[in-house]
Amino acid sequence: MTDLLRVPVSEHRDVSTRVLTALGVPEAAAREQAELLLEGDLRGHASHGLRRLDMLAQRLRSGAARADARPTSTWVTESVLVVDGDGGLGPPIARRATEELLGRVAESGVAVAAVRNANHLGMLAPYVEAMAAAGVVGIALTTSEALVHPWGGTQALVGTNPLAVAVPVPGEDPLVLDMATGQVSRGKVLDHAARGLPLAPGDAVDADGVPTTDAAAAVDGAISPFGGPKGYALGVMLEVLVATLTRTALGQDVRGTLDPTDPSTKGDLFIAMDPAVFGSGTAPVADYLATLRQTTPAPGHDRVLVPGDRARATRAANLAAGVPVAQGTWATAQQIAADLSERH
Amino acid sequence: MTDLLRVPVSEHRDVSTRVLTALGVPEAAAREQAELLLEGDLRGHASHGLRRLDMLAQRLRSGAARADARPTSTWVTESVLVVDGDGGLGPPIARRATEELLGRVAESGVAVAAVRNANHLGMLAPYVEAMAAAGVVGIALTTSEALVHPWGGTQALVGTNPLAVAVPVPGEDPLVLDMATGQVSRGKVLDHAARGLPLAPGDAVDADGVPTTDAAAAVDGAISPFGGPKGYALGVMLEVLVATLTRTALGQDVRGTLDPTDPSTKGDLFIAMDPAVFGSGTAPVADYLATLRQTTPAPGHDRVLVPGDRARATRAANLAAGVPVAQGTWATAQQIAADLSERH
Repeated sequence: MTDLLRVPVSEHRDVSTRVLTALGVPEAAAREQAELLLEGDLRGHASHGLRRLDMLAQRLRSGAARADARPTSTWVTESVLVVDGDGGLGPPIARRATEELLGRVAESGVAVAAVRNANHLGMLAPYVEAMAAAGVVGIALTTSEALVHPWGGTQALVGTNPLAVAVPVPGEDPLVLDMATGQVSRGKVLDHAARGLPLAPGDAVDADGVPTTDAAAAVDGAISPFGGPKGYALGVMLEVLVATLTRTALGQDVRGTLDPTDPSTKGDLFIAMDPAVFGSGTAPVADYLATLRQTTPAPGHDRVLVPGDRARATRAANLAAGVPVAQGTWATAQQIAADLSERH
Repeated sequence: MTDLLRVPVSEHRDVSTRVLTALGVPEAAAREQAELLLEGDLRGHASHGLRRLDMLAQRLRSGAARADARPTSTWVTESVLVVDGDGGLGPPIARRATEELLGRVAESGVAVAAVRNANHLGMLAPYVEAMAAAGVVGIALTTSEALVHPWGGTQALVGTNPLAVAVPVPGEDPLVLDMATGQVSRGKVLDHAARGLPLAPGDAVDADGVPTTDAAAAVDGAISPFGGPKGYALGVMLEVLVATLTRTALGQDVRGTLDPTDPSTKGDLFIAMDPAVFGSGTAPVADYLATLRQTTPAPGHDRVLVPGDRARATRAANLAAGVPVAQGTWATAQQIAADLSERH
């Protein structure tokens, strides 16, 4: 990590917003996309951070992502919102969808948004955190390019299909899960390959489907599902669940987040449930989380965490120290911004 | 497995139904409970099969489970059903709840049932399969006794918290996931301890929280979460999600499925979503599943399966060969039935 810069939050936001608006994205949408890139870097997930700006810019230039998208959303029932993103950037479309859910769920108790034709959402946690901040249980699912091999298989046929859930906890921060169903991210495989670092056993297979710790060999192979057959089953199920309800692509037909030219064919699903509608009284969640955090750690562990603890700590540390951005990523972003500025 | 009997389906159903009705359970409810015990054994999950009849009988005798339960269910909104099981048997309560969801979801698109005060549901797959048979995506969650240690912890503080999902697949069997979030079941730990067999590395820890393959040591320890920190995070999240929406217990306060006297304090959550409401057209799921099943297997694997394939094959084989039941389990069930019959 020798080439890591620490960038002020405002400069991080600013360069993304300038690039996107220069490419025709309306100011408000550009700011929402910039915020998601910022959250990726703040939480230590560089592959969802500023590193994506170059690809987003290429996609906007090619028309694979549409700066002038006119998303439509329709309440097909009292509780089901169907959204067509018209090829627009993911974050503004997803933000509108979750806001619409929040506007209904206090009345309906449950509300679901099925989104198609939206670009990459970035980290899922911010969307469900916003629901939890409104006192609502939030679930977010999205499909993604086929990078993971099936359990017992050799070819990449399943997306990394992340799952995010946030549950509001009275009196403290929400419980927040945000995990992909691959054992490692594609970003980590590429990063380790570039730096000559090994992967851990079980992380990936090579082009022949043989398990490998050689990151360079894994680049041409596939990521392994987390948790063996159970993690594979969960990943496939999330893929089929989302595709069925959003009528979007599956497996290797999921395109448009890792390439500059293909329309986004993935789907996104958001579920909101309002605990207050389900009855009075609350479960003693804060006490339970305290019990978990205070339990005796196992040998080799400092302490026990609950979902969201680590991301919150990482985010707070990076807010204090400056947003971590690879020098090359920062230089590229500045260069794109400068080129666009000259052209105007 | 030397002591394994092969029992006709009708005899399996019959002994459970006789025991339950003799203990005052209405005939229809007894049949639904018997069916779930049968499904457990048919799918090769003996811990959810006839082995549970003895505990159910003890719980009915002690009043921890109520034969004369009068469950109440209330649609608190168009899409949210709140169920109080009044301490009754799990399967009839859960069957009613999912049937009520199916009665609404074609109109509402999504419907959720939150259940409390119901006894053990048994296998979750049959509930979501029934929803998929009606063309509806089904999700079932239930909390369970704290048997799993947190990642980095030593004590059993998290339930095995299973998750079941079924998605209808036009033209073929549904895709069905039914998995617990522990690496192994408590039943397997007990079974291996009784037979002097080892566990696999990573399955469990001993009473000091040290990883062990000694099943006897694991009996006094805790089951490990599947998939390391991700599986732990998923298990905790499901526990808190269900408890929050059903206002039920958490962690070691979850009682009443493994003991004869405590009321059931767990919660159950069912979600139904009707794909037809979400829009016209369907995702090419059958093609995708065919691609997965036909992909080249990795060295050491015969072929690639998709969620539900194995359970369906096991079930079909056991339907043909007879329901597998341990000799001791069968003898106990017959003895309970005979004792009850004499008393009448």
